[in-house]
Formats: sequence, C-alpha cells, structure tokens
Amino acid sequence: MSTSVDVAAWLNRVREARPLVHNITNLVVTNVAANGLLAIGASPVMAHAKQEVADMARIAGAVALNMGTLDEDIVEAMELAGRAANGAGVPVVFDPVGVGATPYRDEAARRLTERVKLAMLRGNAGEIGVLIGAGGQVKGVDSEGAASDLPQAMRRYAEARGCAVIATGPTDYVTDGRRVWALSNGHPLMAAITGSGCIATAILGAFAAVADRDQGPRAYAEAAVAALTCYNVAGQLAADKAQGPGTFQAALFDALYHLDGAYVKEVAKVEVLAE
Amino acid sequence: MSTSVDVAAWLNRVREARPLVHNITNLVVTNVAANGLLAIGASPVMAHAKQEVADMARIAGAVALNMGTLDEDIVEAMELAGRAANGAGVPVVFDPVGVGATPYRDEAARRLTERVKLAMLRGNAGEIGVLIGAGGQVKGVDSEGAASDLPQAMRRYAEARGCAVIATGPTDYVTDGRRVWALSNGHPLMAAITGSGCIATAILGAFAAVADRDQGPRAYAEAAVAALTCYNVAGQLAADKAQGPGTFQAALFDALYHLDGAYVKEVAKVEVLAE
Amino acid sequence: MSTSVDVAAWLNRVREARPLVHNITNLVVTNVAANGLLAIGASPVMAHAKQEVADMARIAGAVALNMGTLDEDIVEAMELAGRAANGAGVPVVFDPVGVGATPYRDEAARRLTERVKLAMLRGNAGEIGVLIGAGGQVKGVDSEGAASDLPQAMRRYAEARGCAVIATGPTDYVTDGRRVWALSNGHPLMAAITGSGCIATAILGAFAAVADRDQGPRAYAEAAVAALTCYNVAGQLAADKAQGPGTFQAALFDALYHLDGAYVKEVAKVEVLAE
Repeated sequence: MSTSVDVAAWLNRVREARPLVHNITNLVVTNVAANGLLAIGASPVMAHAKQEVADMARIAGAVALNMGTLDEDIVEAMELAGRAANGAGVPVVFDPVGVGATPYRDEAARRLTERVKLAMLRGNAGEIGVLIGAGGQVKGVDSEGAASDLPQAMRRYAEARGCAVIATGPTDYVTDGRRVWALSNGHPLMAAITGSGCIATAILGAFAAVADRDQGPRAYAEAAVAALTCYNVAGQLAADKAQGPGTFQAALFDALYHLDGAYVKEVAKVEVLAE
Repeated sequence: MSTSVDVAAWLNRVREARPLVHNITNLVVTNVAANGLLAIGASPVMAHAKQEVADMARIAGAVALNMGTLDEDIVEAMELAGRAANGAGVPVVFDPVGVGATPYRDEAARRLTERVKLAMLRGNAGEIGVLIGAGGQVKGVDSEGAASDLPQAMRRYAEARGCAVIATGPTDYVTDGRRVWALSNGHPLMAAITGSGCIATAILGAFAAVADRDQGPRAYAEAAVAALTCYNVAGQLAADKAQGPGTFQAALFDALYHLDGAYVKEVAKVEVLAE
Repeated sequence: MSTSVDVAAWLNRVREARPLVHNITNLVVTNVAANGLLAIGASPVMAHAKQEVADMARIAGAVALNMGTLDEDIVEAMELAGRAANGAGVPVVFDPVGVGATPYRDEAARRLTERVKLAMLRGNAGEIGVLIGAGGQVKGVDSEGAASDLPQAMRRYAEARGCAVIATGPTDYVTDGRRVWALSNGHPLMAAITGSGCIATAILGAFAAVADRDQGPRAYAEAAVAALTCYNVAGQLAADKAQGPGTFQAALFDALYHLDGAYVKEVAKVEVLAE
C-alpha cells in the first residue's frame, strides 16, 4: 500500500546516523529497550543520575522518558533531562506508563507534560485517553478500554501542544495535530511480552533523532509512522519464527536487526484518516 | 497421579481472571517475572515508589514482595505495600531472597514477616530453613543445605503464623500448617537460569489472587501446589526444546503460554506427606 | 595456537570452586550478568544496599563493580564494597562504563580507582583510553576511537597501579604491567547485544576469584586471558547457532554452559605482544 511516508528512507537514516538515544526508562525493560535500539541500528545509553542526565541529554540525538517504575528521583531526573534536551533542541519522547492507575502516576505525567516540551507522546490507548482527558481505562500498566473518539481527541491535543501523539495497540494511531494515521501492521504476540510498548518508545526516540527538527510535529509524526511500521513488521516476521512469547522476544531482535526497508514498504499498512 | 488439588481448574481460574499482580521485586528479575506472569495469563505491574505502592497494592489481586536486591527504600515500600494489601484483604506473597547471607537481609526478612501478614512465604530450602529457625545454609542467594526435618518445621511455622509456607528445590514442599505436599516435577535447567525462584514467586501471586480468601492458608497452599506444578511442568516441556540455559529461558515462557491444564494434571507428581 | 595460559585449567578451576561473585552492576545487565555467571559455573549475587555490601563483599570470591547506570548511592556502595573487599583480600574488578561521556562518570571513575585497589580494570578501548589518560573517545557507552598506542599506555598504567588492565573490542588487550596479550577470538554479534562487555566483567570476576592472590596482577592478567578467551569462543559458538542478536544472546548462555575447555584451548587465538 502506498503511503506518503517513505519508511525505507527513514530506516536508512537511522542506520546511517546511528543516533545516541538517552533513555530514562523503567526497571523492567532496560535490557530489551537497549537491545531494541541496537538491533534497529541506534546507540542506546541509560543514565538516570541527577548529576549527569542534563549532560547526557544534551549530547544525545533524542531523549526517551518512560515512567514505568517511577519514583521521586526518577521523576526529577526525567524533568532535568527533558528540560536540558529542550534547551539544546534535542527531541523528547515521553511514555506515561500506567497513568490512570494511581494518583502518583497521574501527577508525575502532568508534571512532565507541563514542564517538558515533547516531540512525541506515546502510550497505549488507555493511557493516552487518560492523559489527554478523553477517557479510557488502565489496569496496572495495561489498557482496559479506550475512548471511541480517541484519534480525534489525540489530534486536538497534538495541535494544542505542538507535538506528535501516538497511541499503540492492535491499531496504532499517530497524529501531528492535523493529519491522523492508522497503522495496522503487527502481531498479537507483541502484547504477550512485557515492554513491547516501551521498546516502541525507545525506537521512536531513534527515529525522532533523525527527523528535521525545524519541521516540528509534522516531522516527528512521520518519524513515528516509519518507526512503528518498521517495529510492527519486525513483529510480524518474528511471529513467523516464534513458538511463543519467549522465542518471540528473541526473534524480534533478530528481525529488527535484519529488517529490509524495501520489504517494510511493501507490506506497510498505513492508512491516512485525516489530512 | 491423582491429587486432591485440581491443577487444571486453578490454571483456568488464573487465565479467566487475568489477575493484576503487583510486584516489588529485585533488579535481576523484573523482566522475567513480568514475562512469566504474562505467559501464565496474569497481568503484571511493577511499582516501588512509596507514594503509590499502597494504592497499587489495594487494586491488585495479589502482592508479591521479593527482597533479592533490597535497600532501605525497597524495604519500606514492601512494608507499605504489604500493610495496604493486608488492610484490603489482598493476599501477600513474600520471597526472602538471600536471607542468612547478611545481617541486613536477616533484619529485613524479620521486619517484613513481623509487620505484614503473609498468605504465602516462599524461598529455597536454605532460605526457608534460616527464616523459620530450622537451620539451613545460604551462599549469596543460593541454598547450600537444608535442615533434615524441614517439612515438619515448615508445618509448625505455617500453623503458628497462619500462612502457607513453600520451599522450592529439586523437590518442592508446600504446607498450610496441617497438610504437607511434596512436588517433584521440574527440571535441573530451572536452577541454571537466574530468577527461576523469583518467577515462581510471581506466579504464586497469580494463583493466590484467585484463591478463596476466606479459606486462608488452606486455599493458599492448594493454590501453591497448583502454581508450582504448572510452573514445573512448563520447565519440563521447556527443557525438551532447549539446548542450554539461554534457550531454556525463552522456551519456559513459550511453555507457560501454551500450557495445557489437562496435560499438567496427567503428569503431575504431587505427593501428600501429611494431612 | 600455543599459549602460556592454560585456558582449560582455569575454566575447570571456576567450575570446581563455583565462586560467589558479588556484583554491583547496572540496571541494563543485571539479568544477563547473573545468567552469564551461572552459565560459566559461578554463583552470582547482586546486592547494592550500603547496609550489606561490605558483608557481602567479604564473603565473596570476587567483587565486580560496574558503573553503567551509576548514581550517588551506587557509587557510595561500590566504594564500600571495594574497600571491604580490599580489607579481606578479595579481588575487585572495575568496569568504568561510559567514562568520558559525562563529567559525573569521570569523577566517579576517578574516585573508585583512587580509593579502591583493583585486581582488574576492564572497559572498551575508548573507556580505558580515557580513564588511563591515553586518549580515546566515548559516545554514550560505546567506544568511538582508541589511542594508537593503547596497549603500551595500558602496560604503564598497570605497572604503576599494580593491577591487570583489560581493553575489550574486536581485539582484546590484557596486561599485568609487564606482559601484554592480544586476544582475537570472538564474533561481531557480541557487539550487537547490550551488556556483552558487562557480562565479560562479571565473568572476569569469576576467574579472578580462583586466581592465586599472592601473585597479584600476574595471576589476574592470566585469569583475564583465560576468562576472555572462554567468553569469546562461546561467542563464536553462539554465532553459529544464531539468526541475529536475539537468538545470539540465548545461544551465548547455552555455549558458556556447555563450553569444553579442550576445545577452547584448541581454537584460542592468544598472542603475546610483550613479555
């Protein structure tokens, strides 16, 4: 299917630039997020000390913040890294894991979105719905239900905030505040491993790092369409090799590593809902 | 072999309820514990901030506390989560990893067992022996020797404390303070990967979540017999597919994911030592 | 190729002693470092609380310190563990991950190397070059360039400090301050997974634990030659089984677990550059 986003070109750009992605992420996914970034061709670094996050963020190509196992120090570090990235023009991706599950997570997500200018906001449908005030349900860190008009609510939020907004699930929605895409590659096994959303967030960082910063949300949304399509197609390829979620996780890194841009382009299921 | 615990029915109950298991666990196993829970059909959440552990514990089906890489904040968070769970009637599973290795671990285990009412206490034979005062040896986090009368000592502790007590190893022992079971499914490769005991603890949480709380230790012990038998049979199936501990770990999640209750029932090796 | 270091004898020694290796390591590699140690035949423990690191270090066969995701508490814990190990004669391995990337990492590495007497210092070529003042470049946690005279600079540093110095990469260099070895086993896929250097550090700890302490850097350098050759040959064997980095990681643990000392000896590529 044809699409205005040249997925193969984006993938090449990541592999050529090998961007440094600075992650402040949760304790569950540190290893798999780093391996996902290496496999797609980026260079991951994890650093959370208040003494260094600003320095690391400024030299990074992108900063990916994930509040999956937040605590006071991590929230403070995410804010410091995010603000330093803002000051240096480095794009920031934010993943509000589990927002809606506890008041503490709601407060942390509000603090981060208020104080840090985001390039991309990504969550599952429940999390994004809760965060942007469209409704939605979250059970622990799992989405339990989304608003029916979520893509439209996302579009309005993206426009008001000037960032790309991304809700992932069986269908992924991406918007830059004007255009809305629906992406339907992927495989159910992706939901059977922990951290598949968090790996997506890290990979979004790698693609954000090679986007044209001057184009703002427009470029970041296209980067997101490319990143998720690559990731989801890798998921499809991995599912073909897997006997279950354990072998799927290993196969996912293999597939990302060997991913062929032309093939991704060929099988991409990218639909433009609004433009 | 026939057994009074209907292993297949317990497994179905977990898969149907998809219980939220709130884990405060160690840095080594966060990923594999979450993947183990997903694979068996539960919904894992990891959260350790003092600001939210009570909220998360109260909405969970069970709370699993594991002190493998404890520190001051984690011990405090485990106590807060445990007490909140107690207040809400949510069962608490405690894994005193490495108790006996350092005075700090001994003190933390004592604090937790004194201040939190447990539904299940699980460790390796060395840890359980040390914790319940029956003797036993621990080297780092490995069991180096168990008391010869461990099952009897466990039974007395379980009776006095009103909780199920579980010691895992080549043979697992489970008691509710009256009955004692010996479980002998499993495979030596389970001891060749890190965190196989910690995954067991997380999975015990999933089964505790679907036990009848009103029956207390009686139900929790039966849940433990079912949980460990499922887990151990998955270990056997995984070992058939594996070439060593690396491929075994992946195959273990595959086996948990596809586990057939009727098959587990058929091959279960559950012996009742006392009733 | 013949070598003065009997790699097979060292491997046997590790497997027979099953040494306890106390790791204070980064959040990305806790699981894989523990699995690497188990697979080679050692007993891993991770512990970072200030209240117990000294106790744990004193009962360990070796202490492995890795600053990959350092923060204030971790740096303090590493110093406490290192000094306790020094007091008890327990060898300390230090991995200055990402030194050169931020001032905070530079300061932490300086603090650790000044206050703790090391048995082994290991990093990638960029990190070692930066730390010993020979030049080199680091991007996040990846080496981006090494000094051309790195082995000689390492030799001088090792001699001055009385420790073995190890720089890993496509070719690994090991020196005790007098002799210099170049090791060229291994496979490019080792660089495609996160933490392959950190697993090496943990395994160096296992071999340091069975070295003759009285011989000092001489024995620790030989232990390092043996450890890295075993690890690199396992990497070669794993690459034969792998379809990419995901299956490679699993295959690496399988290969370490089944590693045959005689085979390692046969295919070892150990060159003595200076003696």
